[in-house]
Amino acid sequence: MNSQNITFTQPSFLQQGDTILIVAPAGIVKQPTAIEKAKETFENWGYTVIIGDAVFNEHYHFAGTDAQRKNDMQWALDHPTAKAIWCARGGYGSVRIVDDLDFSKFAKHPKWVVGYSDITVFHNKLHNLGFQSIHAPMPINFKEPWPAIDESMQQLNYILKGDLPNYSIPSNPYNQTGKVSGIVVGGNLTILENMIGTSTCFSTKDKILFIEEIGEYKYHIDRLLRALERKGYFKDCAGLILGDFTDTKQNYPEFGQSIEEIVLSIVEKYNIPVLFDFPAGHEDKNMGLIFGHEILMTVGNNSSSVKFSN
Amino acid sequence: MNSQNITFTQPSFLQQGDTILIVAPAGIVKQPTAIEKAKETFENWGYTVIIGDAVFNEHYHFAGTDAQRKNDMQWALDHPTAKAIWCARGGYGSVRIVDDLDFSKFAKHPKWVVGYSDITVFHNKLHNLGFQSIHAPMPINFKEPWPAIDESMQQLNYILKGDLPNYSIPSNPYNQTGKVSGIVVGGNLTILENMIGTSTCFSTKDKILFIEEIGEYKYHIDRLLRALERKGYFKDCAGLILGDFTDTKQNYPEFGQSIEEIVLSIVEKYNIPVLFDFPAGHEDKNMGLIFGHEILMTVGNNSSSVKFSN
Repeated sequence: MNSQNITFTQPSFLQQGDTILIVAPAGIVKQPTAIEKAKETFENWGYTVIIGDAVFNEHYHFAGTDAQRKNDMQWALDHPTAKAIWCARGGYGSVRIVDDLDFSKFAKHPKWVVGYSDITVFHNKLHNLGFQSIHAPMPINFKEPWPAIDESMQQLNYILKGDLPNYSIPSNPYNQTGKVSGIVVGGNLTILENMIGTSTCFSTKDKILFIEEIGEYKYHIDRLLRALERKGYFKDCAGLILGDFTDTKQNYPEFGQSIEEIVLSIVEKYNIPVLFDFPAGHEDKNMGLIFGHEILMTVGNNSSSVKFSN
Repeated sequence: MNSQNITFTQPSFLQQGDTILIVAPAGIVKQPTAIEKAKETFENWGYTVIIGDAVFNEHYHFAGTDAQRKNDMQWALDHPTAKAIWCARGGYGSVRIVDDLDFSKFAKHPKWVVGYSDITVFHNKLHNLGFQSIHAPMPINFKEPWPAIDESMQQLNYILKGDLPNYSIPSNPYNQTGKVSGIVVGGNLTILENMIGTSTCFSTKDKILFIEEIGEYKYHIDRLLRALERKGYFKDCAGLILGDFTDTKQNYPEFGQSIEEIVLSIVEKYNIPVLFDFPAGHEDKNMGLIFGHEILMTVGNNSSSVKFSN
């Protein structure tokens, strides 16, 4: 295990009064009130929240043209004092701007980039640049009375303040037991696969890989996972964490395997700990993960945990 | 242009009495009568046709278990006298067996591998091994009275006999004009993207890339094409041919671009000839292409052609 030797820059955790920037680098924001509610809530929690100029722009599928979204993201990356960039939503579009962004000012003023799903593009990019980032709910996830999202948003707030999580995960009979430490990295499966072979493909060597997915056929999930396997992602990694696989589509004939069986049919030969049912992804309960941060992953027969050490 | 210096082994063209093997390396064959009809037609055209043992097997999504499909494909690859391996259908499944196949006997007795869609996995593999292969209709495409498929099957027969095509393509106002020669390679977009960064990813340098797709959202097509771009597929290639984009799914909001506009927004900066509406892919008219073979691609304002030289 060499992952202890890899260090990723950890942006400063937030204090009362610190500034969070909301940007929309991907899909069109169809529920602007959710963004306003997110701003209001985080302001009530003591932060200053600034919504980027282009967040409510509309350009067909996207929250503004590529140029508008890129300019807003560049403004956020360059911001000299803000401590976090919170992506309004995912959808699709981050890959259309990521290669045109300049991270040189960001490197001088690192800040937390927060989001999931399509925002995996930025998590990958930041990982390769050597920065930690946060896989967590986004402003679009705000709904009243939000009983479920509330827990996840509170958790995001804890992480932003530097109170790092130690999650207990319910048992799944398909889990492969083991105890391993390593840098955690990952995100949405479709995006992880789409990055393979490009500048935003990362190494999983000695790392713990997290994967979630939404709205795909099982045969498509199988194909995506096999691309990761054929790239060596599972052979080299220290462990695997599976989050939500939400709204998997049905096709005929039946695929004949559960998500757990698909995953294990590909990874069990590598003899790594495998943890299913981590509560992160496209369900209401979406508990934050700090990518680029070391975790201790313990998968037992009766109890499992994911602990972020300070 | 260096592609003239690359040579791909050309299997022997077929003569009366030569043997064609039908195998099913991917999806379950739901219309066995189509396979029988294909066999009968090609027998009437003077060939011997042998259907592999596992073609009508059923294992959920697949035409038999991975082991059954692999064994059948291995039997076909190893066959000492057959001149062609004709894949019964696509669907999904080729990537699950391709890495476990042994091509050493095939290399001693090269034969044409014929198919499209999921069979792109084998086209890519064979391209990297240095063999030509044929992108053309499959046995599953047989339908009576098959007025459209008939032309494509006749064309496949011409190619198998070594009568190489010179196609005239109707004009599309989005075409980018130019005249270029190069080795043609490609296939299904989803599969091409899925191979990136793995052992079945190929170089497009100085080659002419052919792409077709079925049943995807435009934002997904955009994402797949951007993976190819970010891998350098368009920067290095000599030209681009777009086949059918069949049954593109609608989503809301509208993507805001036609397929032609999506493609050109990504490739126009590379200043290569781009030819739309080549009749190959998932429509009834699916005219054969010999991957790994040199073509002369001429895209004019009023007329365009794709010529395979002997």
